[in-house]
Amino acid sequence: KMLQRVLCTVLFMGVLPSLAEVSQGHISVVLLGATGDLAKKYLWQGLFQLYIDQVSSGHSFTFHGAALTALEPGQRLMFDVLKKLACPPDESPNRCAVLKDQFLKLSQYHQLKTAENYTVLNREIETLLRQEGLKEAGRIFYFSVPPFAYTEIARHINSSCRPPPGAWLRVVLEKPFGHDLESAQQLAAELTSFFKEEEMYRVDHYLGKQAVAHILPFRDQNRQFLDPIWNHHHVERVEIVLKETVDAKGRTSFYEQYGVIRDVLQNHLTEALMFLTMELPANVSRAEEVLQSKLQAFQSLRGLEKNSAVLGQYQAYASQVQEELQKAQDYISTTPTFAGVLIHSDSLRWEGVPFLLTSGKALDERVGYVRVLFKNRAYCTQRETLRDAEHSQCKAKQIIFYIGHGVLNMPAVLVSRNLFRPVMPEGSWREAVGLSDRHIFGQPLSDYYVYSPVKERDAYSVLISNIYYARKDFFITTENLLASWGFWTPLLDSISHQPLRLYPGGVENQHLLDFEMVSGAVAFTLAEPVELLNPNRLMPSDYRTIQSKFRQSPLVSAWSEELISHLASDIEKIASQTVAQSGQFHLALSGGSSPVVLFQRLARHHYAFPWKHTHIWLVDERCVPLTDTESNFFSLHNHLLQNVRVPYFNVHPMPVHLNQRLCVEEDGGTELYAKEIMALVANASFDLVLLGVGTDGHTASLFPRSENGLEGAQTVVLTESPVKPHQRMSLSLPLINKARQVFVLVLGKGKHDITTLLSRVGHEPRKWPISGVSPSSGQLVWYVDYEALLG
Amino acid sequence: KMLQRVLCTVLFMGVLPSLAEVSQGHISVVLLGATGDLAKKYLWQGLFQLYIDQVSSGHSFTFHGAALTALEPGQRLMFDVLKKLACPPDESPNRCAVLKDQFLKLSQYHQLKTAENYTVLNREIETLLRQEGLKEAGRIFYFSVPPFAYTEIARHINSSCRPPPGAWLRVVLEKPFGHDLESAQQLAAELTSFFKEEEMYRVDHYLGKQAVAHILPFRDQNRQFLDPIWNHHHVERVEIVLKETVDAKGRTSFYEQYGVIRDVLQNHLTEALMFLTMELPANVSRAEEVLQSKLQAFQSLRGLEKNSAVLGQYQAYASQVQEELQKAQDYISTTPTFAGVLIHSDSLRWEGVPFLLTSGKALDERVGYVRVLFKNRAYCTQRETLRDAEHSQCKAKQIIFYIGHGVLNMPAVLVSRNLFRPVMPEGSWREAVGLSDRHIFGQPLSDYYVYSPVKERDAYSVLISNIYYARKDFFITTENLLASWGFWTPLLDSISHQPLRLYPGGVENQHLLDFEMVSGAVAFTLAEPVELLNPNRLMPSDYRTIQSKFRQSPLVSAWSEELISHLASDIEKIASQTVAQSGQFHLALSGGSSPVVLFQRLARHHYAFPWKHTHIWLVDERCVPLTDTESNFFSLHNHLLQNVRVPYFNVHPMPVHLNQRLCVEEDGGTELYAKEIMALVANASFDLVLLGVGTDGHTASLFPRSENGLEGAQTVVLTESPVKPHQRMSLSLPLINKARQVFVLVLGKGKHDITTLLSRVGHEPRKWPISGVSPSSGQLVWYVDYEALLG
Repeated sequence: KMLQRVLCTVLFMGVLPSLAEVSQGHISVVLLGATGDLAKKYLWQGLFQLYIDQVSSGHSFTFHGAALTALEPGQRLMFDVLKKLACPPDESPNRCAVLKDQFLKLSQYHQLKTAENYTVLNREIETLLRQEGLKEAGRIFYFSVPPFAYTEIARHINSSCRPPPGAWLRVVLEKPFGHDLESAQQLAAELTSFFKEEEMYRVDHYLGKQAVAHILPFRDQNRQFLDPIWNHHHVERVEIVLKETVDAKGRTSFYEQYGVIRDVLQNHLTEALMFLTMELPANVSRAEEVLQSKLQAFQSLRGLEKNSAVLGQYQAYASQVQEELQKAQDYISTTPTFAGVLIHSDSLRWEGVPFLLTSGKALDERVGYVRVLFKNRAYCTQRETLRDAEHSQCKAKQIIFYIGHGVLNMPAVLVSRNLFRPVMPEGSWREAVGLSDRHIFGQPLSDYYVYSPVKERDAYSVLISNIYYARKDFFITTENLLASWGFWTPLLDSISHQPLRLYPGGVENQHLLDFEMVSGAVAFTLAEPVELLNPNRLMPSDYRTIQSKFRQSPLVSAWSEELISHLASDIEKIASQTVAQSGQFHLALSGGSSPVVLFQRLARHHYAFPWKHTHIWLVDERCVPLTDTESNFFSLHNHLLQNVRVPYFNVHPMPVHLNQRLCVEEDGGTELYAKEIMALVANASFDLVLLGVGTDGHTASLFPRSENGLEGAQTVVLTESPVKPHQRMSLSLPLINKARQVFVLVLGKGKHDITTLLSRVGHEPRKWPISGVSPSSGQLVWYVDYEALLG
Repeated sequence: KMLQRVLCTVLFMGVLPSLAEVSQGHISVVLLGATGDLAKKYLWQGLFQLYIDQVSSGHSFTFHGAALTALEPGQRLMFDVLKKLACPPDESPNRCAVLKDQFLKLSQYHQLKTAENYTVLNREIETLLRQEGLKEAGRIFYFSVPPFAYTEIARHINSSCRPPPGAWLRVVLEKPFGHDLESAQQLAAELTSFFKEEEMYRVDHYLGKQAVAHILPFRDQNRQFLDPIWNHHHVERVEIVLKETVDAKGRTSFYEQYGVIRDVLQNHLTEALMFLTMELPANVSRAEEVLQSKLQAFQSLRGLEKNSAVLGQYQAYASQVQEELQKAQDYISTTPTFAGVLIHSDSLRWEGVPFLLTSGKALDERVGYVRVLFKNRAYCTQRETLRDAEHSQCKAKQIIFYIGHGVLNMPAVLVSRNLFRPVMPEGSWREAVGLSDRHIFGQPLSDYYVYSPVKERDAYSVLISNIYYARKDFFITTENLLASWGFWTPLLDSISHQPLRLYPGGVENQHLLDFEMVSGAVAFTLAEPVELLNPNRLMPSDYRTIQSKFRQSPLVSAWSEELISHLASDIEKIASQTVAQSGQFHLALSGGSSPVVLFQRLARHHYAFPWKHTHIWLVDERCVPLTDTESNFFSLHNHLLQNVRVPYFNVHPMPVHLNQRLCVEEDGGTELYAKEIMALVANASFDLVLLGVGTDGHTASLFPRSENGLEGAQTVVLTESPVKPHQRMSLSLPLINKARQVFVLVLGKGKHDITTLLSRVGHEPRKWPISGVSPSSGQLVWYVDYEALLG
C-alpha cells in the first residue's frame, strides 16, 4: 500500500515514470549494518543517489535497512540517518525534496538476527510485490558488517532470501577479504558455497574514485596517442601513491592485525596498478574482457622479495597499541604503517619499468595519485627560457590521475601539454580553470591540460550505481582477489619480522622515508639513524660472511640469502674479467634445486653481467625431454635464460633427446656434446663450473660407485641415478677438473651431515664423487650456508 | 750576442735563473705563419705566457717567427704583434714589463720560403748556441699555415732543421687534418714519412679548454664517488654541446668544404666524448695509458647511420655562399651548419646510454658544455616544497663541465649537491661564489657545487705549456685521428645528399631544431613546416593503404613503412587468435632483407604478441653456420629473437650444420627438420608462412627450374641458388601450400618488374616458383609496397 501511495504521488507529480515504464520490475535493496559507520557516512547517501538517478529508469525500488538492533531503536537510529541525507548540488531543491520524501517512505528497518528474521523479510518482500502487482527484477544485499559475520548472513540469505527464478541476486561485500592467500581462499570457498560468482560484488571503493575509474576509459579514448608510448620504451616510472596525515589512533585493534600493505596496497593501489598495466581489451566496457585482461596482468607481475619493500612505523604507534590493546610497556609491534614497494611486470610492454606503490599514515600531507612519468627523449636546442610548455619536448612529460586532496583538492586527470591534448568524455569531465598559479610534480599547473569531473561524485555513489548496472569490472572477482593475495602473501610472509624504520610523523619525517631503487630492490636513502631511534635492535647486517678453508680450499659461508648474493657477485666478477681477457665466458651449470635461487638472483640483480658473451653449458641432465618440468635445462630456462639475453647460439643443452628417444647410447649424444665442447671451449677447460652436492656425496650426475665418469678419458658420460629418473647425462670428473674455476654450492640443514663428513674424509671419489673434485690447475671454492655448515 | 746580453740583464735583475740552472739546455721555438690570424690572436700570447712560466725552469729560449713575407715587412708585421702582447692579470706589472722586453729581444723574424731559407735558419740556431756555449734541448716548429703547405714545410724541416742527436724535435700541427678517412690517412702517411709519431703534436684546442682538460683529472680525483655511478645503470644521458651565435659569413670558402660535423663534431666534441667514455687508466697523468684507453673507447662506439643525425642549415647560408664563392643564384649548398648526432657506445659500461653531440652556427646563444645527467632512482615521500637540494634525491642529478660563455660566462665544473661534494685540486680550482640567483639546466645555481679555475687561461696557453711538458695526451695522435675519421666518415658519406632543415637563425629558430631519439635514431621533433620551406614536397601520409586483389588473392599496398606496420598488426592478430584457439602459433619466416624491417617492427611495437606460445620456423636457410652473418637465422636472431621472449624450445633453426659440415645429404638435415615439423605442427600445416619474392621469381629457396621442392612428397629439401652461397635448405612448395595462411611481402623499386610480370602470368612454378604458391585450403595475402607495385 505504501508503495502504491508513492507511485500515485509520483504520477501526480509528473516527474516520475508511468506504470508502463515501471514494468522493468522491482528492485529490493537490503543494507545489512544499516546503522553502522560506513552506512551512516556513505552508503545511505549512495542509495539515495541511486534512487535519484534511477527513479525514471523503469525500475521501482524499496530499501531495507537491517541490523542486529531491535526493531524500535533500530528504526529510530536509521531514520535519524535518513533524515540527514543531503541533496546533490546539481539537483533542483524542489525535485530533491520530493524524492527524499519518497525515498524515506520506500525505506524500512528490519531486525535481522535469527533465521526466522530472514524468512520474515523474504515473506514481506514477496507479499509487497504481490500486493502491488509488480514483477521482481532483483535483490541487492549490501554487507556492511564485520567479516566474521559474513558466513552466517550468507547462509541465511542463500537459504531464505533468494529471489524467485528470473530475478537476480547481488550480494555486496566489503573488505577485508582475508589477510593472506590462505584465509582469503577459505573465505572465498565459504562464500562460493552460498553464492555464484556472478552474484558477488566485492567492493574496493578505490574503483569508485572518479580518477581511478577513469584510467581505463582514458586509455581507451586516447589510444591514438598512447599506443606508441604506453610501454617501457617511453615510460620511465609509475608512482601509485596514497599518503595520509592521520594515524591509526583509535583504530589500532583493526590496524595492528593488518598494517599498511593489507590495508591499502594489496587492494586499492594494486587495482590502480592493474588498470595501468593490463593490455587494453578491444571493448573496455565489456566487464568480462576487462577482468580477463586484469588476470593476465597479474600473471605478468614479477614475484616480490623482502628487498622489494621499505617499511616504516610512526613513533607514536607503539604506545597507541599498548594503550588501546592493553599491551605491556615492552610490547613491540611489527606492523608497518608506511610502505614503499617496487613492482616489476615481466610483460613485454612493461619490462624494466619501475612501479612504485607507496602509502603511509602520519605523513606530511594527504594526497592520492597515480603518476606516469615518461622518459625525456628530446634534446632542445634553444635555451631554457625560450622553451614553451606546449612545444618543448624537454619539459617533463607526465600523465597523472589525481585521486584527491593535496594541492588540487579534487579528482583530476592531468596531461603534460607537450604530450597531447587528451580526449575526455564531454559531459562528465571538463577542463579545470583558474588553477594556473599552483605547482604540481615539479611544474606549474599551466604546463598541463587539467580535467576535473563535471559532478564530483563520492566513490560509493559510483559503486552503487555500478552494482545497479551489473558492471562487474568495478568489483573484485574471486579470481582477482586470490591473484592479488597470491602476489602479496610471499612479501607479507618474508617481512613479518623485518625491522621497521621509525619516523616521527608529519613534516618532521623530512627525508627519513625517501627511498631509492638499487639493482631491482629498494632501500631507504638515508642511513638508519640507529643511535636515535633504535639503540638495541640487532640488524641482519651485523652478521658477516665468514671466509675460511674447507677441505684445503677457500670456503665462503653465510646465511643462505647472503651467500647466494655473494656467489652471484663472484660469478659476475669472473665473467667480466674472462670476457675482458678472452671475449667469451664458458659457464657450466648444475641442475637441482639449490641453483634456482642463484639463477633468480643473477637474472634480477646483475644487469652488467656480460650475457651476450657468455656460453651456457649443462653439468648434467636428466634423460627426459627438454620441455619436461623434470629437465635441468627446463628449470635453467625458466629461472634464468628466459630473463636474460644469452644469444641462442651460446646456449648448449645436453642432447639427451635424439631421434625421438632418450639417452640411447647408439644415438651418440655424449659424443655430440663432447665434440661441441671441444669445438667451442679452448682446451675443453670451462671458465667456471658450478656444482652441488647430494646427501650421498654425489656431484653432477656422478653417483657413488658409478661405472662411468669418475675416471678415464671420456668427457661426457651416461650414468645411472639411484632415484628417478634413473638415466642421466653428466660431465665427467676429469673434465670438471680441467676447469679454471669450480664453485660448489651447498645449502640447507639437509646437507649438514654430508658437509660434516666431507670435512673429514680424503680423496675417495668412488665412495663420495664430490671428494674427487680437485681442479688440476684451476681453483676450487666452497659456498656453504650456515645451515649446512653448522646444522 | 743578443742572447748573452739578455742573460746578463737577467742575472743583473736577479729575477731569472743562474747560468747553472740554464744547464737544462736551450729551446728554439719556430712559429710558422707568424703573422697570420691565429698567431696574432693566440699563439704569440701563448708563447709569451710560456716564457713567463718557464723562464726559471732551467731552459733558455729563443723565438723565431717565420712566414713567406720578405724579411723587412715581415719583421715589421711581427713586432707590431709582439708589442701588443698583454701581461697576464696575475703577473706583477714590473716583472711583466721586464719579461716582455726580454721576450721581444729573444724573438726574431725569418723569411722561410725556399729550401735555402731553412738551411740558413738551422745554421743560425747552431751558430747562436755555439756562440753562447749552450747545450741544445730541443726545437718546436709550430705550423700555423694552411694544410696544403704542410708537406713542403715538413720536408724542409726534416731535411734541414732537425736538431742534433740528444735534442728533441716537436712539430705542432693545426687542423684540418684531412676531411675524411682517406684524405686523413694520406696526410698522415706523408707526415709520417718526415716525422716520428712522438715528434708530432696535433692540436685540438678543445683539449686546452680548462673544463675539458679537467674531465679526466675530475674522474680520477673523484673515483670514490663516481665508481658506482659512472655507468649505464645510473647515467641517463650525456650532452656534448657547442652552440654559436655567429654564422659562417666571411668564412664560407672554408666552411663550404667542411660543414659543422668536420669543423666541430669530428674533433672537439668527439675528444670530449672520449674523455667521458674511456675506461680510466690507473694513472691518468701517463700519456701513453690515456691514449690507449682512448683508442679502446673508439673501438666501442657503435657505427653511425644516416638516421643517427639531424642536420640543418641557416637560411642566409645559401646566399652567403653564392656571394662569397661567386655561385649561381640557383646553387644549392648541402653543407650542414647545424647537426645533432646520437652516439652509442657498446661497452658494457655505457650500453644503451645516449650521447648527444650538438653544434651549430646562427643559434640563439653562444655556449659550450658537457653535461652528464643521472637517472632519478629515488622516490621522495615528502611533498616538493619540503625537499632541500643537499638531501633530496629527487632533484635532478648532474655533472657539468661548462666550457664557457652562456649564462656563466666562464669555465666551470658543476656537481648537483645531492650527488657529492667533489674533490677539486686546490690552487687551480676554487668554489665560485655570488652566482646563486642564476638558473642553469633547470635548476637554481644554488643546487650545485660550482667550481671555476683560479686563473682563467686561454686554451693555447694551456696547450703550448703541454707541448713544453711533452704531455702527448693533450694532443691527437695519428691513431686517434684515424679512429675518429674512421668513426665519422660513414656518416659523412651517407648524409652527403641528405635534405637539410632550413632555420632562420637566432631566437627565431624556436623549436625548429629540437630533436628526439626514436628507436636508436634521431629525428626533428616538429614536422617540417612544409608550407613555408618546401611547398612541393609530397608527404607519405598523403597516401593511404590500398586494399585490392593481386593474382586473384587479396592485396594490401601502401608505402613501405605503412605496409610493414599493417603486416605486423595482421600477424599479431592471427597469432593471438590462433593461440586463443589452439594454445600455440606456428610461424615460418623467410630470410632476406625485406623481413628485417618487419622483425624490427614486431620486436619494438607489438608488446602483446603471444611470443611465449609462438614457435618460430625457418622457411629457408643458407648453408652456412648459424652464427655466420650470412645466415637467415642469424639475422632473425639479431632483429627479432634477441628482443622478444620466445622460449628456447620453440625456436627451430634449420639443421644446416651437422657433424661439423654444411648441408651434406647423408647427415639427414632435411629429414631431421621434416620430422621436427611432423612432431610439433599439427598436420604439418603451419599457421602462417611468410614469403618473399626474388627478381627471378624465386620464393623460399626454391629457384626457377629447381630439381627439388617444386613438387613431390618431400617437405624439406636441399636446393641450389644461382647466387652465393649456392647451397640452401628450404621448405618445399607442397608443404608451404598446406599452410593455413601465406603472406607474401614484396618491397622496393627493384621488385617492380617481377611484380608486373606476376600480375600477368598464370601457374608456372618451374619458371617462377612464386607462381606456384596457392594454399590448398588456406589463404594467400600479398603485401606489396607502392614502389614494387607502381615502380
